[in-house]
Amino acid sequence: MSTAFNNRNSASTVLTGDRPTGPLHLGHYAGSLKQRVAMQDGSYRCFVMIADMQAYTDNAGNAAKVADAIPNLVADYIGVGIDPERTTIFLQSAVPELADLTALYMNLVTVSRLERNPTVREEIRQRGFERDIPVGFLCYPVSQAADITGFRATHVPVGDDQLPMIELAQEIARRVNRIADADILPEPSAVLSKVTRLPGIDGKAKASKSLGNAIFLSDGPDAVREKVMSMFTDPDHLKVSDPGKVEGNAVFAYLDAFDSDIEEVGRLKERYRAGGLGDVPLKRRLVDVLNEAIGPVRDRREAAFADRGELFRILKAGSAAARQEVAATLLAVRKGMGMTVL
Amino acid sequence: MSTAFNNRNSASTVLTGDRPTGPLHLGHYAGSLKQRVAMQDGSYRCFVMIADMQAYTDNAGNAAKVADAIPNLVADYIGVGIDPERTTIFLQSAVPELADLTALYMNLVTVSRLERNPTVREEIRQRGFERDIPVGFLCYPVSQAADITGFRATHVPVGDDQLPMIELAQEIARRVNRIADADILPEPSAVLSKVTRLPGIDGKAKASKSLGNAIFLSDGPDAVREKVMSMFTDPDHLKVSDPGKVEGNAVFAYLDAFDSDIEEVGRLKERYRAGGLGDVPLKRRLVDVLNEAIGPVRDRREAAFADRGELFRILKAGSAAARQEVAATLLAVRKGMGMTVL
Repeated sequence: MSTAFNNRNSASTVLTGDRPTGPLHLGHYAGSLKQRVAMQDGSYRCFVMIADMQAYTDNAGNAAKVADAIPNLVADYIGVGIDPERTTIFLQSAVPELADLTALYMNLVTVSRLERNPTVREEIRQRGFERDIPVGFLCYPVSQAADITGFRATHVPVGDDQLPMIELAQEIARRVNRIADADILPEPSAVLSKVTRLPGIDGKAKASKSLGNAIFLSDGPDAVREKVMSMFTDPDHLKVSDPGKVEGNAVFAYLDAFDSDIEEVGRLKERYRAGGLGDVPLKRRLVDVLNEAIGPVRDRREAAFADRGELFRILKAGSAAARQEVAATLLAVRKGMGMTVL
Repeated sequence: MSTAFNNRNSASTVLTGDRPTGPLHLGHYAGSLKQRVAMQDGSYRCFVMIADMQAYTDNAGNAAKVADAIPNLVADYIGVGIDPERTTIFLQSAVPELADLTALYMNLVTVSRLERNPTVREEIRQRGFERDIPVGFLCYPVSQAADITGFRATHVPVGDDQLPMIELAQEIARRVNRIADADILPEPSAVLSKVTRLPGIDGKAKASKSLGNAIFLSDGPDAVREKVMSMFTDPDHLKVSDPGKVEGNAVFAYLDAFDSDIEEVGRLKERYRAGGLGDVPLKRRLVDVLNEAIGPVRDRREAAFADRGELFRILKAGSAAARQEVAATLLAVRKGMGMTVL
């Protein structure tokens, strides 16, 4: 499996996406959104999926939350610089061929294979599903394999917790190719993000909407200031003159991710460790850095969100283009496997 | 649950179908095909599905068998008198909306609920899947629920072993209606066949292609004669003068199903029980009865099978009509559940 991101010929196709269950935050921006823009500016064919069918696997009775998140996500994408002219932004449920491909792949994967998936096991535990897992939730890695292979994606940017999903997609691609005795589906490669995960403003390992510890792309300057000023630093750094810890300090984690003056951040870390640098000036610096970094994002985001009609036109056009891609793959898979196509 | 078949208003819709894994035989004819023709001649809206997606759940690597069975099934249907002008004959995989509906329903059903299904448990045992069940096989009852509710079927003819499937479809319909707070999906009723299952010619409880003990609708007069003359009767009925057993005697089971002279069959049973009636004259009678019953079926079947192009035109037209039905249901379900529809 390739973990480098160095294949820049035009045959390379990238699939990324998000579950529409809430607004995107700075963790997404540092971890994946910037990378998507870089890929789009390279010579990749880029597809970004709003994974509503996947969101319903644990929100079937709460579709309103998903419906609310969908236009917000499109606005977030446009805010960070994903360009609908160069990147196909589409809605998963508007590409029914993905459900068809999923149904076919479900015959190539056993129940016990899915139950062994460590990421799914962990998520089942987190959600408290126990034995009452919706079967759609157990199967979402198969659906992801359909998403990836449906676009014949060669590169899939993921966090390391998502590697089991890519492995399953690779297995399914190999199985289809073996049955068809032809190279119908490329085996996708995982592209691991170089950015370590951004912590929450409370210092917890993960920033998320449900934990209430994230800075959103839609947050205005006041919200950014308020969240940064309340940020977790080093609980033992009581007096300015005390030595402070940099590791586990959320302010430095955000500075590392967003401050372009790397040398100055290095000097600040030294001073903080030695003692004599207080939290407040550090936080003021971070407020400025973040407002500079996400100010333009926020402005573009707001302008885009003001024209909902245009957001849905973008989604419709992208979904129509996506359908053509997946329909071609579905046809090739069906014919390759010897199935009757009317 | 209604087990009677007495609702003849035009709002009634019937869905039936077969897995395309082999030719239909006299067991199908007596048990369900005749009933479909009767329904078609009533005022029901009738849909007959060739369930190829379901066949792939345990034939994913053997699609050639399925591909071969599909035109044979259409010819069988036309042979028995199913009229494409009055009954919509369609191919499951050509109605992608069914896969979409299945994907939605998979979020409403738990893994443990599917694992409790007694019919699926028995089939898993029969196929020797143990822990290596394809997830598509475990989920096929969800797919059936999509088939049934996709057409808003009110009546589903089934054998008693299929009742758990209807119960699941009812549960899903109720769940969707509850989430939507509206009567979007009717709860389907099972229609139990009045005909007891026809045994194999070897006396085994079930006739099937894989057991090699069935008389097919496509069998010519010689094959029918040969199979009937080899039929299992009563192994203790050694001499003509011995008393013979009627129960468990395959010849009488077939006479009961196909001989229109019920009184004469009653007299033959009495004579057989008393002793003095041999197997050979009984079997000769059955040969004549079967050739009379299925001769016209065979002729229509052969004529239909000779024009493969027409068979596929029928399937295409039926599938296009079926898509319209299911697309309307899918839209209603999505909107009812509050999902975003582009």
